[in-house]
Amino acid sequence: MPRVYNFSAGPATLPEEVLLQAQEELLNWHGLGMSIMEVGHRTNPYEELSAQVIATTREVLKVPDNYQVLYLANSSRAHFAMVPMNLLRGKTQADYLHTGIWSKMALDEAKRYCQVNIVASGENLGFNSVPEPANWRLEPDAAYVHYTPNETISGVEFHTLPEVGEIPLVADMTSSIMSQPIDISRFGLIYAGTQKNMGIAGLSLVIVRKDLLGQVLPFTPTMYDYQVHSDNNSLYNTPASFAVYITGLMLAWIKRQGGLTAMAELNQSKARKLYHCIDNSKLYSNSVDLNYRSRISVPFFLHNKGLEAKFLAEARAIGLVALKGHRTLGGIRACMYNAMPELGVDKLIEFMQQFEKANS
Amino acid sequence: MPRVYNFSAGPATLPEEVLLQAQEELLNWHGLGMSIMEVGHRTNPYEELSAQVIATTREVLKVPDNYQVLYLANSSRAHFAMVPMNLLRGKTQADYLHTGIWSKMALDEAKRYCQVNIVASGENLGFNSVPEPANWRLEPDAAYVHYTPNETISGVEFHTLPEVGEIPLVADMTSSIMSQPIDISRFGLIYAGTQKNMGIAGLSLVIVRKDLLGQVLPFTPTMYDYQVHSDNNSLYNTPASFAVYITGLMLAWIKRQGGLTAMAELNQSKARKLYHCIDNSKLYSNSVDLNYRSRISVPFFLHNKGLEAKFLAEARAIGLVALKGHRTLGGIRACMYNAMPELGVDKLIEFMQQFEKANS
Repeated sequence: MPRVYNFSAGPATLPEEVLLQAQEELLNWHGLGMSIMEVGHRTNPYEELSAQVIATTREVLKVPDNYQVLYLANSSRAHFAMVPMNLLRGKTQADYLHTGIWSKMALDEAKRYCQVNIVASGENLGFNSVPEPANWRLEPDAAYVHYTPNETISGVEFHTLPEVGEIPLVADMTSSIMSQPIDISRFGLIYAGTQKNMGIAGLSLVIVRKDLLGQVLPFTPTMYDYQVHSDNNSLYNTPASFAVYITGLMLAWIKRQGGLTAMAELNQSKARKLYHCIDNSKLYSNSVDLNYRSRISVPFFLHNKGLEAKFLAEARAIGLVALKGHRTLGGIRACMYNAMPELGVDKLIEFMQQFEKANS
Repeated sequence: MPRVYNFSAGPATLPEEVLLQAQEELLNWHGLGMSIMEVGHRTNPYEELSAQVIATTREVLKVPDNYQVLYLANSSRAHFAMVPMNLLRGKTQADYLHTGIWSKMALDEAKRYCQVNIVASGENLGFNSVPEPANWRLEPDAAYVHYTPNETISGVEFHTLPEVGEIPLVADMTSSIMSQPIDISRFGLIYAGTQKNMGIAGLSLVIVRKDLLGQVLPFTPTMYDYQVHSDNNSLYNTPASFAVYITGLMLAWIKRQGGLTAMAELNQSKARKLYHCIDNSKLYSNSVDLNYRSRISVPFFLHNKGLEAKFLAEARAIGLVALKGHRTLGGIRACMYNAMPELGVDKLIEFMQQFEKANS
């Protein structure tokens, strides 16, 4: 089978040229006569790679000097506990915006370590929207405010940054990192798994304001202490070196495309086209509030649910794969991260229109 | 540069045929039209891969039915905290054998969670040996006994299993896992990073007796709860899927070589040859107690320290690389994990003999 268009929610599609470069140098990286997978992490070549990936991350995301950039060999879920363990700083409560399944998992984990205040919950809105900011209940003594800028399952995305005053804003950007420019200075801490927009699974990125570190809860495991990783330039433990390498290739690819401005335009264009197709159809629907529709993970439903299996099978047959909705929601979901080319979305839309015509 | 012989302590050398297979299918795994790196972890193909890697691990290591096998997206250092968090089970103390730098890091981390009893320490022996078992101070009420079967830095290895009675034995097997057959039933828990003998960095293997799970300390992060990963077949969070895939290729390679019996013979033969060369030389020396010499990580020193840089440079020039000793010890270190072919060690020995002759 030739390369397919892979709409997976993550691990997600990678640019073919990134894969081709990885393939070409898989047995001999940088002329060392060995694979990047075999290079010791206490060697100059690996330390240079690590430093360069961090420097390029800073450049692409325009990270201010008072923030630290870390790459950690873990899953983004680890940060659900790491955030309260590191950021409570003597306080006993934290604010959480509850906007879907991922923010719920983050706040449930935080309850082990502090009092969790729900600033606002989308539950009564079926998680298809977010309550008006005027109705949010921010706690002045909260250690931080946590939110999930893009809920991949329900396809709900914030298109502006929450206004939380002086309290550090913390974001789980796993599904939106590197998909558009962001103003890092508005955040206390950002964490993100790399397996959607900027690499493969088993690695997470952390961007944290330096003054917030150094006050972990007493029982915090060493590996959960951001300060330790910061003091060691993400080389405290054996890093997930191959994943760091792939992120390096992704960052170079993003730069070649024109950086985050180009990524934002591409992702906006793909989303606009797909929602236009859905909204002009009698077969497909997306029920998310227009103000919160995700640019990158778009769930939609067929009015005739009996056609779903046929839709998925026919799509797969022409190379449009991983379109099945999340198991908790059903339906269809198209994730269109950075590496999904516009052509893939064009092909999906063409298929959707033909399928609707053939089945109406 | 052609492929070198890479004596790195880890990440370490991989068999060329494993790399060639990974390279060949890097853009199209199992005919799916995508890379294994791009396959969603909630799909049948990935779940089958994961199940197969676990099943093959059980087969190769002959894991009894009352043990669980887990693959976790983290570093082996995470287990320094995970072990006490999971295995204290209401007890307040744990036994640790202090045999070098790695066991010291494990016991220092455990001190955050319990009273640590040092069963025996090799410190007075310069960590070149281990005190006689007759002099060990095992604590009858310890929750477990932790040890490091192979200390990679000083090159000290246990060649028999410690006798600890009914108390669960816990081992950090990061540098010795899969290097020879082991009697799993003698252990309560085994953990190991995969980046030395059985894969790449960013993944760890856990083998744990099922009855020991389910009693974590109350503040344990969900991701540090072995029971959670056990209940979810190592798919609770997004797995380090590419690393799991490489471990699958390594397990298949180990089986093709003849399994762990063949690995043990290979590793024994390489070690015997190298120690023979060292012991019959006037230039090189290894000071580890003959009863505790490591089969797989061999540090040695040049009597004329001034020749070290020359030794390393000339070795590198003929494709024998990563021989520099650990920064805390200096000297030379040759790590000879599963994937180091006998031919590589033969070449190293030939070089050592020629170097000695040329510099005597």
